[in-house]
Amino acid sequence: MNYSMVFRIVGRISGMLAVILLIPSAVSLIYKESIRGFAAAILISAALCVFCHFITRNKTIRMFSKEGFASVALSWIMLSLIGAVPFVVEGEIPSYIDALFETISGFTTTGASILKDVESMSRGLLFWRSFTHWIGGMGILVLMMAVLPTSEQYSMYIMRAEVPGHEAGKLVPKVQNSSLILYLIYVFLTLLEIVLLLFGDMPLFDSVVHAFGTAGTGGFGIKAASVGAYNSAYIDIVISVFMLLFGINFNLYFLLLMKKAGAVIRNEEFRLYVLIVAASTLLIAVNIMSIYGDFITALRYSFFQVSSIITTTGFATADFNLWPQFSKVLLVLLMMIGACSGSTAGGIKVSRVLILFRAGNSEIKHMLRPNSYCSVQLNGKRVDRRVVHGVLVFFLLYMLITLACVLALSLENYDAETIFTSVITCISNVGPGLGLAGPVENFAFYSDASKLLLSLCMLMGRLEIFPILMLFSPNTWKRSSRF
Amino acid sequence: MNYSMVFRIVGRISGMLAVILLIPSAVSLIYKESIRGFAAAILISAALCVFCHFITRNKTIRMFSKEGFASVALSWIMLSLIGAVPFVVEGEIPSYIDALFETISGFTTTGASILKDVESMSRGLLFWRSFTHWIGGMGILVLMMAVLPTSEQYSMYIMRAEVPGHEAGKLVPKVQNSSLILYLIYVFLTLLEIVLLLFGDMPLFDSVVHAFGTAGTGGFGIKAASVGAYNSAYIDIVISVFMLLFGINFNLYFLLLMKKAGAVIRNEEFRLYVLIVAASTLLIAVNIMSIYGDFITALRYSFFQVSSIITTTGFATADFNLWPQFSKVLLVLLMMIGACSGSTAGGIKVSRVLILFRAGNSEIKHMLRPNSYCSVQLNGKRVDRRVVHGVLVFFLLYMLITLACVLALSLENYDAETIFTSVITCISNVGPGLGLAGPVENFAFYSDASKLLLSLCMLMGRLEIFPILMLFSPNTWKRSSRF
Repeated sequence: MNYSMVFRIVGRISGMLAVILLIPSAVSLIYKESIRGFAAAILISAALCVFCHFITRNKTIRMFSKEGFASVALSWIMLSLIGAVPFVVEGEIPSYIDALFETISGFTTTGASILKDVESMSRGLLFWRSFTHWIGGMGILVLMMAVLPTSEQYSMYIMRAEVPGHEAGKLVPKVQNSSLILYLIYVFLTLLEIVLLLFGDMPLFDSVVHAFGTAGTGGFGIKAASVGAYNSAYIDIVISVFMLLFGINFNLYFLLLMKKAGAVIRNEEFRLYVLIVAASTLLIAVNIMSIYGDFITALRYSFFQVSSIITTTGFATADFNLWPQFSKVLLVLLMMIGACSGSTAGGIKVSRVLILFRAGNSEIKHMLRPNSYCSVQLNGKRVDRRVVHGVLVFFLLYMLITLACVLALSLENYDAETIFTSVITCISNVGPGLGLAGPVENFAFYSDASKLLLSLCMLMGRLEIFPILMLFSPNTWKRSSRF
Repeated sequence: MNYSMVFRIVGRISGMLAVILLIPSAVSLIYKESIRGFAAAILISAALCVFCHFITRNKTIRMFSKEGFASVALSWIMLSLIGAVPFVVEGEIPSYIDALFETISGFTTTGASILKDVESMSRGLLFWRSFTHWIGGMGILVLMMAVLPTSEQYSMYIMRAEVPGHEAGKLVPKVQNSSLILYLIYVFLTLLEIVLLLFGDMPLFDSVVHAFGTAGTGGFGIKAASVGAYNSAYIDIVISVFMLLFGINFNLYFLLLMKKAGAVIRNEEFRLYVLIVAASTLLIAVNIMSIYGDFITALRYSFFQVSSIITTTGFATADFNLWPQFSKVLLVLLMMIGACSGSTAGGIKVSRVLILFRAGNSEIKHMLRPNSYCSVQLNGKRVDRRVVHGVLVFFLLYMLITLACVLALSLENYDAETIFTSVITCISNVGPGLGLAGPVENFAFYSDASKLLLSLCMLMGRLEIFPILMLFSPNTWKRSSRF
C-alpha cells in the first residue's frame, strides 16, 4: 500500500472536519452554550491535518483500489474518533466508548443511540449529532471531491468505495462535477424539507435537525418519542415522503433534471422499490388494523414505519415492537433490503436484491438446461458476470458477518430477537431493532465490547463491507512494490 | 419434459415402496398388531406401480437434467403421500396432514414430530417411522439404482438430484456399482451400531430404531425424552460417535476400504468438520458448565448435542432450549452448516461452507487487485467457476427461502425464536428447534397450512432446493420438443 496517499487523504479529510465543526460551534454560540468540546475537536483535527501534510509532502503518491478503500475506511474511523470528542469534553456523554458509538451511529446514518435522555442534551450537540447524519449520508469523501481540486485519476476509486450500491456511476464525465451535482441535489431536497416542516408548525431547530436525519436516512431525533412526539399527520407524511425521496438513487434526480422522466419510470430498481413500499405498507396496515381501530390510522402508521425502515432511517411514530409478529418480521426484512443504490440509505439495496433474484432464477434455468447460459439482465442490459458474482459474494458476507456478530453478541445472554435485530439494524444502518433494542429503547444496556462490535457493524454497513474487511487483511498493509 | 420417463421412474419407486412396506408389516405381525394400515399402503403403491407401467410401455423415454430432477421430486412426494397412509388408517394419527408431516419429516430425515405422546404408538408404526429415516437418508432412488437394472445413461442425473452435496461423485465407473457400495457401507455401519447399542443393554427394538434414526441422521425416537430417556453415558457416546460417522462423506469410507487413509486425513471438508465439532463442543461445554456442575458432565451433554445438531439428526439428551443464549445461537449456526457432502445429513454442508468462505476471501483479494483473479481451491484442486457460482446461488436460495418461510409462518404470531428456528430446523432437516419448537416440544401447535409449509421446507432441504423449486417453474412442465 502507498501509505503517503492514504495519509494525504486522511489529512485532507481531517482538515475538512475542522472546518465543518465550525457549524455546530456557531449553533452553540447562538444558544449561548459552551463550545469547549467543539474547540477541542477542531484543534485535534487541524493538528492532524497539518501533521499529515508535513509527512506526505514531497512523497510520491499513487492511487489504486487498495489505497482507495483504505483511505475511505481510515478517514471514516478518524472522523468518528474525533467527532466523538465534543460529547465527552462537554460531559454530556461521559464514556468515550458511548460517545464513539453515538458518533459512528451518526456518521453511518444508523441512528441507534445510547442516550437515555436525549431531551436534556444541549442544542449544539444535538445539532452536531444530526449533522453527522447529513455529512455521512452523501459521504465526506464525495464532499471533499466536490469542493477541493482532486485528480480525476484517483477519485473514481474513492467514489467506488464510499458510494453505496453495486456500481458507482458517474453522472457527467468529470468525477468532481458529478460529486458537486449530487451535493447540490442533496442540499436542495434538504432545504425543501426544512421549509415544508416549518409549514407544519415545527420549530426551526427541530425542522433542521429532522431534515438532516431524513436526508442522511439517519434517524437521530431530539425527542424520546422520535417523530411521534409531534403527533401531527402532516409532519408524519412530509417526513415519510422525504425519507422515500432520499432512498431513491440520486442519479435519477439528475435524469429528471435532464428531462429524461421516461428513463426514471422505466428504471427497474425504482419500480421494485415503489412496489415493495406499497405492498409492505398495505400488508402491515391490514395486520395492525385491530390495534389502531380504523384502516386509515393504521395506514398512516404503517406508511411512516415502512418508509422509515426500508430507507434505513429509523424514525418512529409508533412502538412497532408491540405490533404482531408478521409486521415485525416484515420490517426486519425491509431493514435487510434497504433502499436504492446511490442513495443515502443502508442495507443490501434494492438493485442488489433484483440481481440476486435474477441470478437465482437464471441458475434454475441453467439446471433445467445445463448447456444453456441465461444471463442476468437489469434495465434491459446484461449485467456482467463479475458484477453478479460480486453481488452474490456481498450477500454472502452480509449474512456471514451478521451471523458471526449475533454469535458474539449472544455472549451477553439477551434474548434472540434483541441480539439478532440489534445486529441487523446496525449493519443495515437503520437504528431501532426489536425487543430490548426496540424503537422506544436504546443501546445503553450493552457492554462496551458489544458497543464496539455494533459500531464495527455500522461502519461495515455504511461502507458496504469491503473497505472495513480489508483493514483486517495483511495484504492491505504490505508496502506496495509495484512500479 | 418427457412425462413417460418421469412416470416410469415414479412407478418403479412405488413398486419398491410396496416391497419395502412388507418389512414394517412383518414387525406388526411379530408384535401381533393390526396390519390394515400397511396393507392399504401396499395396495395403493402396487396399483400405482401397475398403472404407471401400463401408461408408459411402448413410449419413448428420454432422460435429461429436467427429467432427473422431476423424477426425484415427484417420487419423494409420492413416497410421502403413500407412506402417510398407515398412520391414518390405523387411527394413530387421525389427521392426514399430520401424518403427511410426520412421514415427510421421516423420509427427509428431519425428525420433527407432531406426536404428543410417542410412547403410546404401536410397534409397527414406530418401526415404520424410523425406517423412513433409514430409507430417506441414503435415498430411495439410489436404492433403486443399486438393486434394479438401470441404464447408465440416466442414473447420473438421478444421483445428482438425490445425493446431498455440491458434486455427486461416482466411486467406481458404473453408477449402479457406486450405489451398491454406498448401500453396503450404510448397512454395515447400521448393523455395527445396533450391536454396540445392544451391548449397552438397550432392548433390540429400541436399538434397531435408534440405529435407523442415527444412520439416516433423522432423529425420531420412541421416548418422550429422546435418547435422554436411557440416561446412559455409554449409549450417549455410541450414538454421538455414530451420528458423526454418518455425517462423513461416504466416499471417504470407500477410500478407507481402498486403503487410502492419507487421502481421508487430507480431505479438507473432513478436517473442517472435525474442527467445527471439536471447537463447538468445547465452547458449549464451557458455556453450560454452570448448569451441570462439572466440566465432564457438561462435555458429555455438549458433545452429544453438537454431534446431533451438526449432523442434523436431532436426538437430544438435554433440553438445550434452557441453555444460555450463546450455546443456543451456536447450535442454530450448526443446524445451518450441517455435516459433509455425500453423507445422509442435511444443512448447507461443510464443503459448501468451505467454498463460500474461500469465495469471499478470493473476492476481497480481487478487490485489492482488480486485475488479478484468485481461484477457489478445494483439496488442492481448483474449483470450477460454475461450481462456485452454483454454491453461492445455493446459499442465496437457502437464505431467501428461510426468510420467506419465516415471514409466512409469522402470520401465526408465535415468538420470533420459535418461528425462525422452526424454519431452520426443517429446511436443514434437523428436527427440534428452540422456543415452542424446542427438543422436549413438538410441532402439533402449528396450523395445517404451516405444517404443509414446513413439510415443503423439509423436502427442499433434503433434495437441496432445486428439484422442488423446479416444480414451481412453468419451464419444467413444457412438453419437451427436443429431438
